[in-house]
Amino acid sequence: MTTAHHEDRLSGQIQFILEIDKLKRVLRRNLLIDGSRRENDAEHSWHLGMLALVMAEHAEPGVNLDRVVRMLLVHDIVEIDAGDTFIYDVVAVEAQEAAERAAADRIFGLLPGDQATEFRALWDEFEARETPEARFAKALDRLAPIMANHHNEGGTWALYKVTARQVREKVAIISDGSATLGAFAVDLVETSVARGHLAP
Amino acid sequence: MTTAHHEDRLSGQIQFILEIDKLKRVLRRNLLIDGSRRENDAEHSWHLGMLALVMAEHAEPGVNLDRVVRMLLVHDIVEIDAGDTFIYDVVAVEAQEAAERAAADRIFGLLPGDQATEFRALWDEFEARETPEARFAKALDRLAPIMANHHNEGGTWALYKVTARQVREKVAIISDGSATLGAFAVDLVETSVARGHLAP
Repeated sequence: MTTAHHEDRLSGQIQFILEIDKLKRVLRRNLLIDGSRRENDAEHSWHLGMLALVMAEHAEPGVNLDRVVRMLLVHDIVEIDAGDTFIYDVVAVEAQEAAERAAADRIFGLLPGDQATEFRALWDEFEARETPEARFAKALDRLAPIMANHHNEGGTWALYKVTARQVREKVAIISDGSATLGAFAVDLVETSVARGHLAP
Repeated sequence: MTTAHHEDRLSGQIQFILEIDKLKRVLRRNLLIDGSRRENDAEHSWHLGMLALVMAEHAEPGVNLDRVVRMLLVHDIVEIDAGDTFIYDVVAVEAQEAAERAAADRIFGLLPGDQATEFRALWDEFEARETPEARFAKALDRLAPIMANHHNEGGTWALYKVTARQVREKVAIISDGSATLGAFAVDLVETSVARGHLAP
């Protein structure tokens, strides 16, 4: 490997690292657990990485936990260009897909070719939700806002007029990735309904 | 494993996940790359996890990258209780150590015993900086604010009257973890001095 080649690689890697700093400014709909402000995508991605490490034993046996963590660190980077989409806004979710693919091309494309391919593959795998790793990662991504809303007297559910029926559909995705966490999410949802924090 | 035992474990895990959400509210001295606001510990930890994945090839050969990522996700959690310490404030850094150990006892202690031990070991390893994984993790933790200050016309260096001599001492820690990234950091520091963004 020549020095010039080496420097080219580092330069692309640095550009990518500087670019993804913008994820700290992409706001999600849901609030922090203490309700004080909206959460951003970067801190959300960290929290999901920790959730994966802590909840590992509730994944399907044999799941490659480190791949789950990598997928979660990468999963929202496309939102730097494409923005956050509220998962209960069906029309927006469909329109979002092309924008996210273009974002993945541009942002992962800042990296040296082999790494662009590697990171893009992590994101594609997460989106496709076909591997046990992706199912577990997606389950955690769905669980986190339910936990936040449950602790915020309904939080964004009330604000955006989301009903329990809609939330239960998302809970099915959690159960696909982890039976234990699916059951836990059902408890949170039904408790929120019982408390009047989520419309039935 | 009984159901009651299972539920106890999950309950501790959930408590820990809710507790560490507070890391999103611990502010660091340095700014985001775009200079718009101060960075918090949670989004910083995410950025370091990404930095590890992207810069892997610049670590010592044979470094366990996934352990580096785990260490970086965990490394600032003690600051929920102990607060962020500015690394150029030597007196504060010394006083901080006992506070951080107490924080580690309390926060990791929310987890089931085996996990409390596992996460505490990650944090202890990071702090001791004796393994190649910890040296690489610490190098990235030192590199990130230098990158941010370099892109912010000196950023917190000017604000807190930090000199190039002080920064060069931190750069030595980067070189310990990665020769390539150490050389890159030296470039950033000397460019900042040449531009008048860092006092010599």
